[in-house]
Formats: sequence, C-alpha cells, structure tokens
Amino acid sequence: ACLSTSATMAKSKFEYVRNFETDDSCLRNCYIVVRLDGRNFHKFAEHHTFLKPNDGRALGLMTHSARCVMAELEDVVIAYGQSDEFSFVFKKTSTLFKRRASKLMTHVVSQFSSSYVFYWREFFGDQPLLYPPGFDGRVVLYPSNRNLRDYLSWRQADCIFTNLYNTVFWALVQKGGLTSAVSVVLLKGTLAADKNEILFSEFNVNYNNESAVHRKGTILIWERQEETVKKRTKSPREEKETDATVTRSRRRVQEHHCDIIGEQFWQEHPDILEQDGP
Amino acid sequence: ACLSTSATMAKSKFEYVRNFETDDSCLRNCYIVVRLDGRNFHKFAEHHTFLKPNDGRALGLMTHSARCVMAELEDVVIAYGQSDEFSFVFKKTSTLFKRRASKLMTHVVSQFSSSYVFYWREFFGDQPLLYPPGFDGRVVLYPSNRNLRDYLSWRQADCIFTNLYNTVFWALVQKGGLTSAVSVVLLKGTLAADKNEILFSEFNVNYNNESAVHRKGTILIWERQEETVKKRTKSPREEKETDATVTRSRRRVQEHHCDIIGEQFWQEHPDILEQDGP
Amino acid sequence: ACLSTSATMAKSKFEYVRNFETDDSCLRNCYIVVRLDGRNFHKFAEHHTFLKPNDGRALGLMTHSARCVMAELEDVVIAYGQSDEFSFVFKKTSTLFKRRASKLMTHVVSQFSSSYVFYWREFFGDQPLLYPPGFDGRVVLYPSNRNLRDYLSWRQADCIFTNLYNTVFWALVQKGGLTSAVSVVLLKGTLAADKNEILFSEFNVNYNNESAVHRKGTILIWERQEETVKKRTKSPREEKETDATVTRSRRRVQEHHCDIIGEQFWQEHPDILEQDGP
Amino acid sequence: ACLSTSATMAKSKFEYVRNFETDDSCLRNCYIVVRLDGRNFHKFAEHHTFLKPNDGRALGLMTHSARCVMAELEDVVIAYGQSDEFSFVFKKTSTLFKRRASKLMTHVVSQFSSSYVFYWREFFGDQPLLYPPGFDGRVVLYPSNRNLRDYLSWRQADCIFTNLYNTVFWALVQKGGLTSAVSVVLLKGTLAADKNEILFSEFNVNYNNESAVHRKGTILIWERQEETVKKRTKSPREEKETDATVTRSRRRVQEHHCDIIGEQFWQEHPDILEQDGP
Repeated sequence: ACLSTSATMAKSKFEYVRNFETDDSCLRNCYIVVRLDGRNFHKFAEHHTFLKPNDGRALGLMTHSARCVMAELEDVVIAYGQSDEFSFVFKKTSTLFKRRASKLMTHVVSQFSSSYVFYWREFFGDQPLLYPPGFDGRVVLYPSNRNLRDYLSWRQADCIFTNLYNTVFWALVQKGGLTSAVSVVLLKGTLAADKNEILFSEFNVNYNNESAVHRKGTILIWERQEETVKKRTKSPREEKETDATVTRSRRRVQEHHCDIIGEQFWQEHPDILEQDGP
Repeated sequence: ACLSTSATMAKSKFEYVRNFETDDSCLRNCYIVVRLDGRNFHKFAEHHTFLKPNDGRALGLMTHSARCVMAELEDVVIAYGQSDEFSFVFKKTSTLFKRRASKLMTHVVSQFSSSYVFYWREFFGDQPLLYPPGFDGRVVLYPSNRNLRDYLSWRQADCIFTNLYNTVFWALVQKGGLTSAVSVVLLKGTLAADKNEILFSEFNVNYNNESAVHRKGTILIWERQEETVKKRTKSPREEKETDATVTRSRRRVQEHHCDIIGEQFWQEHPDILEQDGP
Repeated sequence: ACLSTSATMAKSKFEYVRNFETDDSCLRNCYIVVRLDGRNFHKFAEHHTFLKPNDGRALGLMTHSARCVMAELEDVVIAYGQSDEFSFVFKKTSTLFKRRASKLMTHVVSQFSSSYVFYWREFFGDQPLLYPPGFDGRVVLYPSNRNLRDYLSWRQADCIFTNLYNTVFWALVQKGGLTSAVSVVLLKGTLAADKNEILFSEFNVNYNNESAVHRKGTILIWERQEETVKKRTKSPREEKETDATVTRSRRRVQEHHCDIIGEQFWQEHPDILEQDGP
Repeated sequence: ACLSTSATMAKSKFEYVRNFETDDSCLRNCYIVVRLDGRNFHKFAEHHTFLKPNDGRALGLMTHSARCVMAELEDVVIAYGQSDEFSFVFKKTSTLFKRRASKLMTHVVSQFSSSYVFYWREFFGDQPLLYPPGFDGRVVLYPSNRNLRDYLSWRQADCIFTNLYNTVFWALVQKGGLTSAVSVVLLKGTLAADKNEILFSEFNVNYNNESAVHRKGTILIWERQEETVKKRTKSPREEKETDATVTRSRRRVQEHHCDIIGEQFWQEHPDILEQDGP
C-alpha cells in the first residue's frame, strides 16, 4: 500500500517529462507522403530465394500489405510501390492524427510490417518466413499538385530505370552465363536503347512485352464500383419472400500498372488530386 | 526503348523533389526515447480473449518483441514495458541513423510489429492471430540523467497505479459478481490504501504478493554473462581429442521486474546511464 | 605564445559544438511570411506621445523602415503593415539564406529595428527617441496563393476592424468627453454599422472619408517605372557635348492603401503571385 | 459600414491561417544560446573607418548594446562577445516567451540592433553613422554544462586565434610597410609561437601585454554588488532631517576580459551554471 501511494504521488511529480515532447504536426494544405523502404532487403531476398530480377510473390505481398494500410487509413488518396518500397500520399486536407508526422509514419510502417508477416503464407505458401523483416519510413510534404506528381514520377522513373537494368543484368547472368562482375562492367555506360538492343538481339526479349507490374510498378487508388448483390426481401403486402437484385456503389482499392508520368492517368482519374485553388 | 530513355532523362528532372525532405536529426548529447503504444489494443485484447487484468501470454509476446528490437539496435541501453506500451532508450552518444528521428522511430516500430506477428504462435499456441495489429510511436529527448530517470519513473508509476486499479476492478467483477459500471462507481475516489484493503478484506488477496511483472512492468538491459562452453580440441602434439571447458563473457539482454523509481536499481547497474560530465 | 598555441589546438577540440545547430530551412515552394510586431508599443506610444487613434509620423516611420527591409531583400514580393506590425512575403522560389527561417526572420527584424532608430528624426523631427524600441518576429509558410491571400486578408480585416473601433473610441474620449472606461462599456457589443452611425450622428464624421492609410493599412510592392534622365553625351564624330533624354525602366517600391481582400488589386498586379502550376 | 461589416465577418473566415504557424519551442532543460553576427561588417567597418586591428569604439558599442539586451532579458546568465558577434546564454530553466526560438532570437537581435544605432553617438561622437547596420541571429541548444562551456571556449579560442593573426597582419602592413597580399602569404603556415616571435623581434611588441579586451573578448555576467547610498531621512520624533548611509545589494551586469576556457573563472563564479543534477 505504502509503495502504491507514493507511486500515485510520484506520478504527478514525474509528469513534467511530457513537456519534453515536441509538436511535429505537418504544415497544412500540403500533401503528406509517407515512404517506406525494406531494411537490408538485399539480404532478405537472398535468404528467401526471391526470383531475379522480379519475384511475383514478393511484389504481391508488398502490394497486399499496402492495401492493408489503405484500408486502415482512408485519407490515403494514392499509393505507389516498386521493389521493396511503397509511398502513401495523404490528401492535403487530411487531419488524421492531427497531421502529426510521427503518428502518421509509425502507423503506416507498423501496419505494413505486421501485415507483411501476417499474409506471408498467402503468397509464399509453405516456404517459411525465416525472421521478422524491418521497414523504415519518412515523411515528406509537397505543397502543389505539380510537386506531388513530380515526386510520383521520380519514383516511377526510378522503377523504369532500375527494372530495365536488372532485366538485362539477370539475362546476362542467368541466360548468358556471365559472372555478376563481368555483367556490371559490360553494362557500365550503356543507355536505355543499348539495353533494349541487348535484350532483343541476344535473348530475343522484347522488353516492352515484359509484365507491366515490373516495368511500371503498382499504383493503388480508391475507385467507386457498382456491386450487384442479391437480397432476399419480403414486402409488407406479400407473404412470399422474393429475391431482389440490389446495386450498390462501393469505394474499393483498385490496382493499376500504367504510366503515371504523363497526363493520361491523371485525366482519367481527376478526383485523386485536389485543385490548388484560385 | 523510347519510353525508357525519356524516363532516365526524366529521373534527373524530377530529383529536385528530394529537396523537400527535412533534416530531423535529434539534438546531440540527449537520451533518445522511442515509445510505442498498441493501436486500439482494448479491442484487440477483446478479440483475442486476453485474460483480465493481465494476460501472461500477451505480456510475454510484448517483451519478446522488445528483445528483437534490442537485438537489432545495440545502442538501446534500457527498455521499459507495461501493458501495450514499450519505451526504448538510446544512449546519449548514439549516432545510429545519424540520429534521425524518423528512421529511429519507424525502425523500432516496424521491427516490433513484425516480431509481434512472427512470434505470436510461441506465446498463444494454436489460438490464431485474427488480424495484423498496429503500433504507433514517438520520439522524445531527455538532456539529463535526472530527466531520463523521471521519464522511466513516470511510466512505472503509471504501471503501478493502473495495475492496482485493474486488479481491484476485475476482482470486483470476476469474483465479486458486480457489473463493470458499478465497479467503476465504487472505485471512484478510492486511494491506493483503500484498494489494497478491498483486495485483502473482500478477496483475501495480498497485493504485494502478486506477480512483480504485473506490478512493476518489465525492464530490459544488457548484461555481461559468463558462459561456460565445452570445446573439443586436439593439441598438435597429442593424437587424441580432449574436452576443454572454456569460459566466455557475452553481452545479453536480461529481464528485470523490480522498482526503478528508487536508487537501488541504478546503483546496482551503474553502466546504464552515462555521466553528465563536469 | 603558450596560451595561444593551446587555444589553436583547443579550437578544433571545441568545434564539435557546431553539430548541435539544427537545420531550420523552410519547405520549398511555399510563400515565406515574416511578420514583426512592436514590443510593448502601447507603452512606447505613450512615452512618445503618439497621437490617437493614429499617428501619421509613427506610421510613416514604420513604412519607411519596411522599405529599407525590401531594399535589402529583393525576394520580398509584397509587404503589408498596419499599427505596429509589418508582414514581409518572400516569393515561393526564393533561395535567400538557403531558406533558413532563423536567418530570414532575424535579418528582417534587425534591419527594421536599426532603420526605425536611424530614420526617427526624419519623421519626429526634434522630438527625441527616448530609448531603443524592440520588435519580435516569426516565420509562417503558406503553400498556395489562396492561403497567402487569406493571410493578407486576415491582417487587413484586423486593421479595418481595429481602426474603426479606435476611431470611435477616441472620438468618444477626445470629443465626447467620456472616460476610457465608459467608452469601452458603451462600445461593447456594437456592430460596425453601429460604430459608423455613432461617428456620423454624434461627431459628424463620415468614416469612409477618413484617410485610407488608416482604414486599409499600407501595401508595399515592386513596380517598374519609366524614368526620364538627362544624360550629357559626346558622340565620337562631334566635338560638342549634347544633352540626350534617356528613358530607363526601374523597379521601385510603391506604396498603396487600397483593399487587398477583393479581386481587383490582384487583377491589377498579376505579377505579385506566382502561378500554382498545373 | 458595409465594407467594415463584411471585414468583421471576413476576419473570422480568414483566421484559419493561424493554424499554419508552427510551435518552435526549445527543448527543456537545455541552455539556449542566441548568437548574433554583423551582416557585411567587413564593409561596414571600412565605410566607418574602424581602426585596425581593433577599434575600441566599435567594441565598446557592441558591448553596450549587449548590456541593453541583458537589461531587457534577465534570464541571460552570461554573454560573450568578440569582433562583430555576441552570444547570449539563457538559463536552462528559462520559460521566457515559452522558450519559443523565434521570439527569443528576434527579440535579442532587434534590441541589439536598435541599441547599436541609438548609442552610436556615445561611442563615435560626431562621426556619423552612414546607414542602419544589420545583424543576423540563430539559436543553438546545449544540454550539459560541459557542452555549454565548450561552446564558449570555442568562441574564445576563435577570438584568441583571430586576434593574434590580425595583430601581426596589421603590424606587417601598418608598421612593416608590406602589402596585404604579401602579408597573407608570409603568415601562411605560421604557428602561434611564430606570430609572437614576429611581433616581438620585428615590432618590439609583447603580445601578452596587449589589451585583454582584444585578446580575450568580453564576458558579461550578473553580479551582486553592495551599493552605498546616502538617504535623507526624518524620524517621526525628531524635527531635523539627517543623512543616513544605506547599503543595498543590487544585481548588475559586470564586464570581464579573462580566460573562460580554463577552470578558474567558473570556480570564481559558481552561480552562472546550474548543476546538471544527480
């Protein structure tokens, strides 16, 4: 009893330490981007024998985990992922967690990490997860639609660039029988056109026919969809129940693998970005 | 090819967006505390039928996940946990992730979250995890040993206070047959001494004999331990192998459930805190 | 010599303290507003017998000091002042002082303060400045044109509101012979229309005919102006010097006292705000 | 009336812009250092023909302006100045301006700037101030006494280093008749001992006899002083007034020009620094 009483008294005596917390709320009227990256995923991919240059199971699990984040946080208007990274864009007017940067980024990273482990089996089946993976995150603010689109373009350009490189590199190693070291040297200084040519001439691969998910990455957005549901109803007058077909409109996360650098995607989905105003 | 070329060019055109990132490195020579809390764990506990007032499996899993964080991040000098929260204290001189707050907190929260799911079965056996849980985190800086100790005292005082309350509350409900609402009303305004008295008179429970892990929470620190290992050796001269006993000193994470508000713990472990200097 | 040598050595030993400085650079692509306010100007005005409700000399000195700031810092696209406050708006794309908030605000406040003392005599003549006045400042970021215009509207609305109040208040005191206390009570709860009515019926003052500088505050912007200069020239062929009239275009700070809440001012000066972009 | 009414309504409509302000309060229990530097003082010194290597009038005016800052802000426990810079140290426990960095630094810089102009005549007599000078400022936090002392040592070591260099340089130019360029080349690579030797052999100057204010800079601290005041009193019983000598203790700013790198100064003034605590 004695200890507990003093503890209660002590609690108020210690509470001053809360004043050391700082307010890290994000500037208003800016897009809030949370980007997460896998930690040591080069090693993680090796330990779990990910296929090269792209592992469909791993990309699927990343996307599924990102969907879990969006399901929890409806203020995310678009997410873009490639390789072991994913970016989540919160709408300008979001007041989620009072826009506190620490809350936003830790929640995204936590939900993503626990989902990644939780859904592992759905994508890797009996291949066991050897240890819990780590992701880190950061917050960046973008004041204008132009800035935000340039951010997303930057990430997709990185995807395009990296994936072409990886595709040629692994073709040289896996099909061409070259060592990694030799392949690195050969590719030094080559342009995109050169890499396409090597793929086509040497390995009969037309890069543009490769899967869009690998070449373009994954875009997740909310879209309204009509759903037709059968509903058993009984009208007050009748005695028999009848089956009625009801159409409902629901917001669901949809997946795209298209270009987001150009105008077309944004013209087709005008609701993602808010107007910058007069 | 054309697309890829323009993408490469585009990449450098878009890279200016990196300048929108801000430097959030923590002030030097301060303890960095990352505290994480379960999100909606009240519901999570209900969904997973956690025992009341304390569930040994849940506390065990929290502690095990915290150990995973410490194993990854050796600059954590002490961690303290209770209920669905855990605080990790990085040493004053840590330069991990260049002391960037976002990296530190997201890494802790991510490792903790994925570990929580990964090790669920070890603590809950066949009882399934129904959905991936979420944790959020924050960073707080403490400049002096006194401030840091007051922070840890604040968290332990909260544990002592809350656990006594919960113990009486659930005794009234589970053993006393009262409703939650009535129990809340009864406990309003009672002091620690009153609660101890209720436990003792009504339920024959001496609170001070309750488990220390519930009353005091969990402290994790690094400690050197002597390990004796048998090693089979063959000296160059001899022909037979012999067994030698080798003693090694290893740093391992040790668990405590003692008082950290008073002086004794800190006197027994003088290496946890750095000297404030002249 | 000995001391100096050790000092040199010491210097490098102490330089680690620079790492405690933090980067406070402002988010890109946002307007940077530095607002300064007089410290204890209520008292300062009394000590220097400023006329009530408005002192032309004091307002003139404020505006002149603001011009000095703009002359030093060409990235200021518009400044707005009223009473003892002035706001300076840096263009979105400014990279002045690497956008460091501390440099921007201290420079503005310092230049303003030293100018205020330096030019005192030009506005107050032989009435002496009794002690050096103080101003404090802050930095606020606005991401969009709408936000910035709303900020400026907020300050002008404050000016309109405050000046109407002060005009009636001092009419009641100076012309009506009421005490301050009674005037405060009388004005409690009155609307703008009521105040206009009091001015008109009691004191035969049509508020809309009052000076615009008092009702609307002061706007400073850069404007191109044609200047005609006489230039004495001697052509290589001729022997006599001749006077030529040369017209040059120069950017100069111009003063306005108009409404900036509505659209007209912004339509007439389309160059102040940058386009938010596509 | 119509305009004013809408302005009042508008004011509340615009007030949302206040939410764009950020909280920049300084971490508790840290020393807050505000350092200010003259802007373009190299040119300012030339325009006002400051004596080289040190101008007593200019240093005196800097120190007097710093005293004005301290008189306004009693939480400054020590200030250190040299050349065209001054550092002000606020006590760890200060809650002035709620520890807001922007308020603290702008107030210091503003008070210093206006005082510099206000008191110019007291130091430069009839030599006119040609234009209002500018200073910029920054805020740095130091968590421990050691860090703070190292900061002050860093600034004094800079003073010692720079002043010795300047003394030799100007001796070579002014007394030795060398050009600036040649003097720079000659001094390249010389150690402190070399510079002392040059001063002594070539110019018969013993550097250690030079004025301490130049070699060590200026330290300002609060000190209690006994003041003896004559007070004319008349006791109720007597009829004649008598002169009584009353001793009062007053806190006043005192000036020192001694070493603050070593222990002695701090041992003699134990009240400047707060204890770091247990």
